[in-house]
Amino acid sequence: MGTVDNNLARKHESGSGSRIKKIALEEHFTTEEHLECMQSIIEKRYPVDEVIREERIFPDEVPFVSSTRLPSAGEVIKRLLDIGDGRLQEMDRTGIDMQVLSLISPGVQMLDGPAANSMAKRINDELAGKISLYPERFVGLATLAPQDPASAAAELERAVKDLGLKGASINSHTKGEYLDDKKYWVIFEKAEKLDVPIYLHPRSPSPDMLKPYLGYPLLNSAILGFAAETGLHAVRLMCSGLFDTYSRLKIILGHLGEALPFFMKRMDKKSLLINTKRRPSEYLKDNFFISTSAMFWEPPLLCCIQALGADRILFAVDYPLESNDAATEFIETASIPDTDKRQICYLNAEKLLAL
Amino acid sequence: MGTVDNNLARKHESGSGSRIKKIALEEHFTTEEHLECMQSIIEKRYPVDEVIREERIFPDEVPFVSSTRLPSAGEVIKRLLDIGDGRLQEMDRTGIDMQVLSLISPGVQMLDGPAANSMAKRINDELAGKISLYPERFVGLATLAPQDPASAAAELERAVKDLGLKGASINSHTKGEYLDDKKYWVIFEKAEKLDVPIYLHPRSPSPDMLKPYLGYPLLNSAILGFAAETGLHAVRLMCSGLFDTYSRLKIILGHLGEALPFFMKRMDKKSLLINTKRRPSEYLKDNFFISTSAMFWEPPLLCCIQALGADRILFAVDYPLESNDAATEFIETASIPDTDKRQICYLNAEKLLAL
Repeated sequence: MGTVDNNLARKHESGSGSRIKKIALEEHFTTEEHLECMQSIIEKRYPVDEVIREERIFPDEVPFVSSTRLPSAGEVIKRLLDIGDGRLQEMDRTGIDMQVLSLISPGVQMLDGPAANSMAKRINDELAGKISLYPERFVGLATLAPQDPASAAAELERAVKDLGLKGASINSHTKGEYLDDKKYWVIFEKAEKLDVPIYLHPRSPSPDMLKPYLGYPLLNSAILGFAAETGLHAVRLMCSGLFDTYSRLKIILGHLGEALPFFMKRMDKKSLLINTKRRPSEYLKDNFFISTSAMFWEPPLLCCIQALGADRILFAVDYPLESNDAATEFIETASIPDTDKRQICYLNAEKLLAL
Repeated sequence: MGTVDNNLARKHESGSGSRIKKIALEEHFTTEEHLECMQSIIEKRYPVDEVIREERIFPDEVPFVSSTRLPSAGEVIKRLLDIGDGRLQEMDRTGIDMQVLSLISPGVQMLDGPAANSMAKRINDELAGKISLYPERFVGLATLAPQDPASAAAELERAVKDLGLKGASINSHTKGEYLDDKKYWVIFEKAEKLDVPIYLHPRSPSPDMLKPYLGYPLLNSAILGFAAETGLHAVRLMCSGLFDTYSRLKIILGHLGEALPFFMKRMDKKSLLINTKRRPSEYLKDNFFISTSAMFWEPPLLCCIQALGADRILFAVDYPLESNDAATEFIETASIPDTDKRQICYLNAEKLLAL
């Protein structure tokens, strides 16, 4: 159990009496093997400096300045590698009861298929091992290699049934391809059957749309590119009929839904030529959950609550790339009903992940 | 003056006593010459069926179904060509006091430079002539051909000083290029000097980012592509330092700001490596106005009011592609203070366009 108190929630609640339990949905880690791989291998179709720097996980020459409260690049890597005391102390300090862990983007999706799948297995084994030391503080989402869809589906089943992971994380495009292509649907079929969610995590725009996002630091990624890429990916899934075939499938989006709730009604009106049974807003409400990762601001949160309801929103930080302090302060002080807050902070996550 | 009452506002106000005056900011027209050109010429770099259909202004084989309350493709073209009695009757029926007219997208931006600029001049002359018949019901934004920036700047000056137009409309990318390229800044320099706004109107994604938006009808355009393209374009302008150089420049965005207000605080945090004097939210608040075109839904409107303030929001329909009825019903019944409503419906437009 390590040296850290495993009963944070009880301890905090007995203190102020007002703190709400928090399960953080999009929190990241890496492994020594994955880190080394990320810093040496880059996709042949993605030979762009901006993406290389980003997908090598912030080597030291890249200043990492997303918030003055955040650590240096070296400290970020140290925190990503630590699924143990350091991470738990930071959770305790900021009142995060549980982290749902997923591998840092782009996961293993930059590797060739066979290497990717075998590395995914090792990562999932290692993650499950770490989690087993702190079962009340960590759960995990499996790493998958969509490059080989059948193997990815099999690994999802193994990760859930044998390792106890709670779903999977996929970092948007794989080799420039999107998951609306039916060759990938075996992964979704398995997720629905296992009743576990897939987190569709951001990644830089796919090679075929990257160029206009280049030229300014982080425009291709955190400023706008992540949201453009991942929002488009989600809409492609809606347009494909995926959710007609797998009507109980659950997808999680970060960044408060990549602005799709903002455009929901417009998308409904403009999608009448799309050959699906239902409209985008219906899929968003019934097949999607959205998290607060890196979006600690009330106007878009209120928009999303109005659009989807508080029962589809999940607290998340994006640790260690974002600040636990900023995320928890934001949700604790948000001008929303306490019942909504409890749903967002932990009740929805407990239900979705069957905790 | 035609056959239509030129004092709609007074007439309506004396009726119900509650109707608010409305100036609609993004309303479109075409000319016979422009229509013929649109339906025969298409850019060499843009040889994609989806874009050809869209940029030829809905030939009859393309069903146009953005709303059941909207007319057929043939009727849309008829309405675009009519700056006269038919349009005025529709405005009277739905309580629109004034339309701010701009040429239907993509304007003349698909033509080669010299042909584009000469056609822009003819279009601006024709528009000014039509407006002069109904000066209390119509004002206009000039068509420009950014292909030749110096000529475009000169035409903007002529259109404002000689023709009485109130600014200009540019349909996002021109030949795949964005206006953050300094060769285009002479246009913005002129706009600032004349104290007139530029409407940055949507267009399908530029050729270098188009492919991932293809494969589903209207995904490249009204479902998501328009917003992705135009939002990116606006952020490129912010990142370029344009608004440091021309600090009084005013840009209008449609679709409630293409979701940029939703992401405003995140963009601020992530743009610290961008070498500009101010943050995106400051430019959005001080250099941008956003319109309600095609976004007749409260959750994003409330988000935008919270983010930018009601004094930066302009009523717009996107006639004849959207429904005057839907737009006016939406704003009349919106759950916002009456003072906000008056700002959005006409006060902000009167101030911005010096009406």
